[in-house]
Amino acid sequence: MSYTTKELQDLAAFYKNQLLQNTVPFWFPRSIDQEFGGYLFMRDRDGSLIDDDKAVWIQGRAAWLLSTLCNTIQPKKEWLDGAKSGIDFLNKHCFDSDGQMFFHVTRDGQPIRKRRYFFCETFAVIANAAYAKASGDEAAAEKARFLFGKCIEYATTPGLLPAKFTTTRPSKGIGVPMIMINTAQQLRETIGDDRCDGWILKWIEEIKRDFVKDDIECVMEQVAPDGAIIDHIDGRTLNPGHAIEGAWFILHEAKYRNNDPELIKLGCKILDYMWARGWDEQYGGILYFKDVYGKPVQEYWQDMKFWWPQNETIIATLLAYTLTGDEKYARWHKMVHSYAYGKFHDQEHGEWFGYLHRDGSVAQTAKGNLFKGPFHLPRQEWYCAQLLSNLGY
Amino acid sequence: MSYTTKELQDLAAFYKNQLLQNTVPFWFPRSIDQEFGGYLFMRDRDGSLIDDDKAVWIQGRAAWLLSTLCNTIQPKKEWLDGAKSGIDFLNKHCFDSDGQMFFHVTRDGQPIRKRRYFFCETFAVIANAAYAKASGDEAAAEKARFLFGKCIEYATTPGLLPAKFTTTRPSKGIGVPMIMINTAQQLRETIGDDRCDGWILKWIEEIKRDFVKDDIECVMEQVAPDGAIIDHIDGRTLNPGHAIEGAWFILHEAKYRNNDPELIKLGCKILDYMWARGWDEQYGGILYFKDVYGKPVQEYWQDMKFWWPQNETIIATLLAYTLTGDEKYARWHKMVHSYAYGKFHDQEHGEWFGYLHRDGSVAQTAKGNLFKGPFHLPRQEWYCAQLLSNLGY
Repeated sequence: MSYTTKELQDLAAFYKNQLLQNTVPFWFPRSIDQEFGGYLFMRDRDGSLIDDDKAVWIQGRAAWLLSTLCNTIQPKKEWLDGAKSGIDFLNKHCFDSDGQMFFHVTRDGQPIRKRRYFFCETFAVIANAAYAKASGDEAAAEKARFLFGKCIEYATTPGLLPAKFTTTRPSKGIGVPMIMINTAQQLRETIGDDRCDGWILKWIEEIKRDFVKDDIECVMEQVAPDGAIIDHIDGRTLNPGHAIEGAWFILHEAKYRNNDPELIKLGCKILDYMWARGWDEQYGGILYFKDVYGKPVQEYWQDMKFWWPQNETIIATLLAYTLTGDEKYARWHKMVHSYAYGKFHDQEHGEWFGYLHRDGSVAQTAKGNLFKGPFHLPRQEWYCAQLLSNLGY
Repeated sequence: MSYTTKELQDLAAFYKNQLLQNTVPFWFPRSIDQEFGGYLFMRDRDGSLIDDDKAVWIQGRAAWLLSTLCNTIQPKKEWLDGAKSGIDFLNKHCFDSDGQMFFHVTRDGQPIRKRRYFFCETFAVIANAAYAKASGDEAAAEKARFLFGKCIEYATTPGLLPAKFTTTRPSKGIGVPMIMINTAQQLRETIGDDRCDGWILKWIEEIKRDFVKDDIECVMEQVAPDGAIIDHIDGRTLNPGHAIEGAWFILHEAKYRNNDPELIKLGCKILDYMWARGWDEQYGGILYFKDVYGKPVQEYWQDMKFWWPQNETIIATLLAYTLTGDEKYARWHKMVHSYAYGKFHDQEHGEWFGYLHRDGSVAQTAKGNLFKGPFHLPRQEWYCAQLLSNLGY
């Protein structure tokens, strides 16, 4: 049940074709806001606009995507111009006077909401870095490096950002080391930065030491600062698709380090543990949340199927397969790929639905909103196409 | 298809029996925390504890429930002692040094989270007021009156509590006038307070003027300060079960004011508009969220069935029927009652599940968590039993 050469060639062509003929054309060029700059991404299944607000996460992610297409597929002027529109909008409207970024702004860039996280900043790093490479713009390169430094500062200085919780029960999430690994990898692969290698290894070490629990074969989403499991509803809540995204960031690092066997082992272990926790044996697909001890999960959408955990699992299983040749990963890849393209892909209007019920029926039809836009799906199609193409398929 | 006398008698007996033989015994006495005071409510379907944290909303609501049972069913010592345990815990552990209440505390009362709302305070008002009536405790009566004054201050002083959003797109929610109406009604019916009558009419007027939209037959959940519809995803999101809760608060006021015909008309209109928006013609039950223009709703659980919208609709339809004799409301009451007791009630362990998929299957089994505890269901059973009993059934 391994993949044949022909199958891998077909997959490479499939992903590239979906990316360029289906996913990217759903969003561009119509989403580029010719009047105010940035992108109008809050769209229903047929592409009609349901809101003209702008989610700062997704403005950055899309500028990254368009720049990355320029850097790795072909240097198309419309992609570069599109990327510039996002970069300019971010610079002009998305930073507060204290240097922190807003989370949600109006079409013309007035702030609606700022959050107590620095994820907007990480997406601005990868956007500026990829755009700097695509355009040669030195200011963007400096901005990327400056913001990466700010992210490190936010990540390592408790209390620098306002807290949502008191200090009674301190905790930390896997999201911070994960996103910082990916941010550093993108920075390194575009414009380079001496800080990346060292920090990436530190963050991987933190995940391995504090979040991966071999005794119960599990990766925690949140732990106490010393890595202890917090046995309360929130502390027990697992996010399998998120951990699996972390698995492929680590496998990507393994590949970068000449197929480092320890990192391959760690990445595959995370994938194995969380596939077992997250794959829905009854209906297929990766479930959103699970309780580590099988107790009820509080988040209401816990057993829904969202688009992005499937995207991350498609990448992780394919990468694990190409690194190990273990046919289990080919089998898993086939399962999640078939499920996801079968259930999420909108045959009529292109792109994917974002939100399915557990049984695979569509819960709501938006292609874009405050949290969904052109990121996880096109990144998956781009990453898998590149991965296979670089391997000669 | 009106209700016969016999049917109304049976309903009265059914609600009272469910309340006292099924719902209350699920929670008490086992939830009273003999060690730290307050209540341990985060329980799975069989009553086993899934978390020993305490949700401050529900600590207050439960102290209200137990006091109200003393005041209206019988002055049972175990109910009064149970109520005192909650009141004492609230006083001892749930207020921050700035006078605001916490939202979530540990079993021994250490604060985990404070929120930018004053709903904890409104539940502390009704808890203290009902307990003061049940016990004769003058300090509790003073506390209730003092906190009611604080709530009025929070509700009428923009900027007094920290804001979640910037001032770019000001909005207000129906939740504030709604909860203040109910808080004032409870205060008035227990220990009395001269401020209540006037404020209740002001808040009803605000709902009528700014949230009820006759042209599109709809009640908005959020509007601009002048009542304009905010045509963005959040502004368009309706919460039919919540508006229907508001409908019965207004019908309750109509009853208090000798069946005031204008208030009956307003309450029934809200119920009519939001039944049409919220009732699921396909599977039955009240849906969680709908978009005012039928566009996709962003909140992920929008088409799930939660317990409390059904409880509020059972009250509203029965109250509307008893006030108007309109057989439509008897029909609706029968529909929502049958659906809810058929799908939510746990025949094996008692009480109701909280979270069903749209199709009525159970999504998760918790009976209590940070947001669910002994409130909407026992309040509905108590209110409906009292309503019918007071009418001679």
